Amino acid sequence: MDTKGIKEAIHWRKLIDVLLDANQYADTILKGGQFINVITREIYPADVAIKGEYILLIGDCSDLQGPSTHMEDVAGMYISPGFIDSHMHFESAMLTVTEFSRLSIPTGTTTIVADPHEIGNVLGVHGMQEMIKEARTLPNTVYFTVPCLTPDAPGLETAGMDIASGDMAELLNDPLVQGIGEIQGFSNVSPVYQHAPELIDDLIASVSYAKSINKTVEGNAPALFGKELAAHIISGGTHISCHETTTKEEMVEKLRNGVSVFMREGSSQRNMAECIRAITEEGMDSRRAILVSDDVVPEDLMKMGHMNDIVKRTITQGVDPVEAIQMVTINAAAHFGFKDSGMLTPGKKADIAVISDLMNMTIHSVYLKGKKAAAQNELTIDLPAYRYPENVKQSVKRKPVKPADLVIEASGSKAHVRAIEIIPDQNLTGSAQFQLSVRDGKIQPCLNQDVLPLLVLERHGRSGRIGKTFLHGFRLLRGAIAESVAHDTHNIIVCGTNYEDMATAVNRVIAMNGGIALIQDGRVVGDLPLGIGGLMTDEMTGQEVSNRIAELHRKAEEELGCGIHVPFMHLSFLSLVTSPKWKITDMGLIDVDSFTVLPAVMKEEG
Amino acid sequence: MDTKGIKEAIHWRKLIDVLLDANQYADTILKGGQFINVITREIYPADVAIKGEYILLIGDCSDLQGPSTHMEDVAGMYISPGFIDSHMHFESAMLTVTEFSRLSIPTGTTTIVADPHEIGNVLGVHGMQEMIKEARTLPNTVYFTVPCLTPDAPGLETAGMDIASGDMAELLNDPLVQGIGEIQGFSNVSPVYQHAPELIDDLIASVSYAKSINKTVEGNAPALFGKELAAHIISGGTHISCHETTTKEEMVEKLRNGVSVFMREGSSQRNMAECIRAITEEGMDSRRAILVSDDVVPEDLMKMGHMNDIVKRTITQGVDPVEAIQMVTINAAAHFGFKDSGMLTPGKKADIAVISDLMNMTIHSVYLKGKKAAAQNELTIDLPAYRYPENVKQSVKRKPVKPADLVIEASGSKAHVRAIEIIPDQNLTGSAQFQLSVRDGKIQPCLNQDVLPLLVLERHGRSGRIGKTFLHGFRLLRGAIAESVAHDTHNIIVCGTNYEDMATAVNRVIAMNGGIALIQDGRVVGDLPLGIGGLMTDEMTGQEVSNRIAELHRKAEEELGCGIHVPFMHLSFLSLVTSPKWKITDMGLIDVDSFTVLPAVMKEEG
Repeated sequence: MDTKGIKEAIHWRKLIDVLLDANQYADTILKGGQFINVITREIYPADVAIKGEYILLIGDCSDLQGPSTHMEDVAGMYISPGFIDSHMHFESAMLTVTEFSRLSIPTGTTTIVADPHEIGNVLGVHGMQEMIKEARTLPNTVYFTVPCLTPDAPGLETAGMDIASGDMAELLNDPLVQGIGEIQGFSNVSPVYQHAPELIDDLIASVSYAKSINKTVEGNAPALFGKELAAHIISGGTHISCHETTTKEEMVEKLRNGVSVFMREGSSQRNMAECIRAITEEGMDSRRAILVSDDVVPEDLMKMGHMNDIVKRTITQGVDPVEAIQMVTINAAAHFGFKDSGMLTPGKKADIAVISDLMNMTIHSVYLKGKKAAAQNELTIDLPAYRYPENVKQSVKRKPVKPADLVIEASGSKAHVRAIEIIPDQNLTGSAQFQLSVRDGKIQPCLNQDVLPLLVLERHGRSGRIGKTFLHGFRLLRGAIAESVAHDTHNIIVCGTNYEDMATAVNRVIAMNGGIALIQDGRVVGDLPLGIGGLMTDEMTGQEVSNRIAELHRKAEEELGCGIHVPFMHLSFLSLVTSPKWKITDMGLIDVDSFTVLPAVMKEEG
Repeated sequence: MDTKGIKEAIHWRKLIDVLLDANQYADTILKGGQFINVITREIYPADVAIKGEYILLIGDCSDLQGPSTHMEDVAGMYISPGFIDSHMHFESAMLTVTEFSRLSIPTGTTTIVADPHEIGNVLGVHGMQEMIKEARTLPNTVYFTVPCLTPDAPGLETAGMDIASGDMAELLNDPLVQGIGEIQGFSNVSPVYQHAPELIDDLIASVSYAKSINKTVEGNAPALFGKELAAHIISGGTHISCHETTTKEEMVEKLRNGVSVFMREGSSQRNMAECIRAITEEGMDSRRAILVSDDVVPEDLMKMGHMNDIVKRTITQGVDPVEAIQMVTINAAAHFGFKDSGMLTPGKKADIAVISDLMNMTIHSVYLKGKKAAAQNELTIDLPAYRYPENVKQSVKRKPVKPADLVIEASGSKAHVRAIEIIPDQNLTGSAQFQLSVRDGKIQPCLNQDVLPLLVLERHGRSGRIGKTFLHGFRLLRGAIAESVAHDTHNIIVCGTNYEDMATAVNRVIAMNGGIALIQDGRVVGDLPLGIGGLMTDEMTGQEVSNRIAELHRKAEEELGCGIHVPFMHLSFLSLVTSPKWKITDMGLIDVDSFTVLPAVMKEEG
């Protein structure tokens, strides 16, 4: 039994005294509001009495109003449980937990379940524990679901740390660790079964251990149906989620199979409008439909909001407001087995979102554990910036490179090469082949055909390998772009119109100890240092990161002539080997379905 | 980590092989049925493939049909998860777990959550552990929710064993123990708070320990509202049930406060039709509405069924059949946090009820852990009778009594006395006063006024006390009735028209080592031996117990002239001090609200 449980017991005893002793009173009463009951799916007038961190009573609280009770007038407002984001990555926002929370708390989000698998790939158990340590300092509630496997595809890529079942005990026993995160090592069910079945044994060992200590497991089942979906569900211990559901047909299949569908509404991938049709058109029970953000950029958090905005969009699809709010409160709490949040009833944590406009999900004020934490979209509590230790800021372990290191070589005058083909706004890629000219043994980029060298340089101080291939569809006209954000192992990925600028871009990323660099003719056009694991920064606020990324996007377009939307994000997903078809890692060009490394150069001529 | 978890992991791995290896097949496929999906609240055609104890796949299972797969034609049938009874007492049926299961399995019940607090009051931890040991031998799933306090009202009654927080570790760590059962020691919230607040401290210590090892806690909140309900919810650790909800108004109040309402439909107390109005009339979300039997007699199990009959009655109230089935499957599983039952999805336990007539809930066949266990209302598996050890059969520790021991004495010729007033078909009682004549110092029963001596004799070998008062409304014309079933401490309770027959009745109960005895003019009119703790028998089947009780009821009416319905049950509840108004224990007449012992004789005259 931990001390948290004992303290809770003492608080329960005190709450009973306040309720039954006529001389004791509530600390705060929210008076005159409309109560959103996510258990019964109702709205009705009720006051809410709070004592310390907890809900005391909902309904007629007049007996609990004492001389020093703080009365808060919420007439005309709606009182809802604070919102839960059941799946997200702080790394996607490039922000610390603190800076993300600074933006998300005023929008009504009181609980976050974060998956730190990006930093886990770079810095392993230690990196994730540093993030958990930060979360422990915050007034909102942040849980973590941790990877049970890094890299996703051992043998085909090199991560900073190799996490496997042997690490589970150290990770999972932390009270802020909710369980195992998205098990994407088994997303490609049949290829993994055929080519790397030992991963399934290790996965089940991790899952089974997690269950034995009452932790949860999250799935990752894009486009899985029937037997493959069943195998994925079983590998996760039979109770899993999926946040990679993109069609109504998939939504129906997964809900019917007991999967909690985390309908994703992030900054780029938005799946709710399609998924929700299983509810709005087929009338399916929505108790396992849950809304998540997955990946959200600071600009969207500031301009549109967080879970409140996702609920608003869900209401727009024809869902009853209370049912939509259930999808960010009780449904999420039920999925994870949260004991103290996701609903407002006696003894639960007083995490509250007060809503002024229900259809627009405008947040009037927010309470965290009984204390007002935000009002009118501003924090009303002090939230000091959090600094990470130096040992997570030395994650780029690679000496500077020369252009010659990056060259893709061939003999003769022409080479037939393989190129990864970008599919706009998707993580999936295609495959293509081109004929390129060779000069002095170096295969040349071809702007006419839109074919550029694409490289991944191992940067964790391990293999030192450089994987090389070509890229089609990136529409870069000048210079080079490199970054240390490259899913999921986060080596340095680089592409460019010439090997010299590519080397300069890589070296700039190395010099910053991680980040994004835009280079033209040897000059730094723009950059963003991401010191924490090469993924996040503790030196900027969300506003500053947002401004800098907007500036980089503008420069990529205006100065480098880059013609695709969100080029850094596209680049970063070209190394994600858990989704088809061709990807690149430090091992080279990867054919995802066959689990093989393909040579970039197919044929040399002349 | 326990071995069950490890075996489960091995099974998961094997199931994945069967799904993905083209040369492996299902053991059984239920083909051509309509699938009842309790997650999505749908019915649609789907086959169900089973491997070993587990569900493999639901949907198109043709790939999984191999040469030795057993095909079961269920065309025209409905395939449902097996039913869960979330709250019941085997003691109420006077049957062993085995004999109860023999009757309940063919009705589709595959999981039972039993509260053994009756045997707990008599035999303590040891008695409950013997019951759990029996459950471990059975093919159906039986969990237990154990009392954290016996007797219910320490100081006002004497149980066989005093259970308190110190016993929780020994009890709760058994894998078949789901958690703490109905916390009725704090049902009378305000009186307990005023008169015995130390019970609340001990309760919270037990509850908090239970939560720390991920066990659940059940409430007991009859007629509680507002602050008292909130205090009860908090005392149970904020997530509780209540099976004592009898009105729509209470149902609304409890659901809104997050209580899982266990709508009781037992042999005598039937609350569903009233409670369900919160769903059918107010449209409240039904996810926390659950159906339970609480107390059911063997005759009803045989004639009407078990949870299937309760679902049928619920459908009759206008509830959609699948929604009603949710109330005995997924809603119950969600309340308790069951990981492997309550729904049929890949990897879950293959506990299945095949229904031939949905509106009448006629059960065609039943599967337990993948094996057919019943068909056409008959078990198809062998279920040997279970014998309890002798050490639970010596529970009546009292020497025979003489009539003089039982006499209620007074001086003079008349006495003004207090009498408990029976309210037909309720556990609640009233209070009344009468004037009785006294002969030779003995207060005389008065058939004209329907006032009889009512006594409770401690029988656990502890105080040896005899509590004495009077009873009004039992309408007994001849002889006496005694029994060792007397809630919740189960001392011997007796009433009669003369002290001689009362003594004979008590002595008959003592001689049988527990049971029920009907005596007239010194002759045994009828009896039922209940050897296990004085509460249950392992020497009769359900059919035999049912026949014997019917015979006793007939004899009570015909030979003793007893004019009330179910007299043994009424008698047994006259000692239940957790419900108002007046009750009797070995300490005497108890005023429940004031926690005091009242003298039976108020005034002596002449």
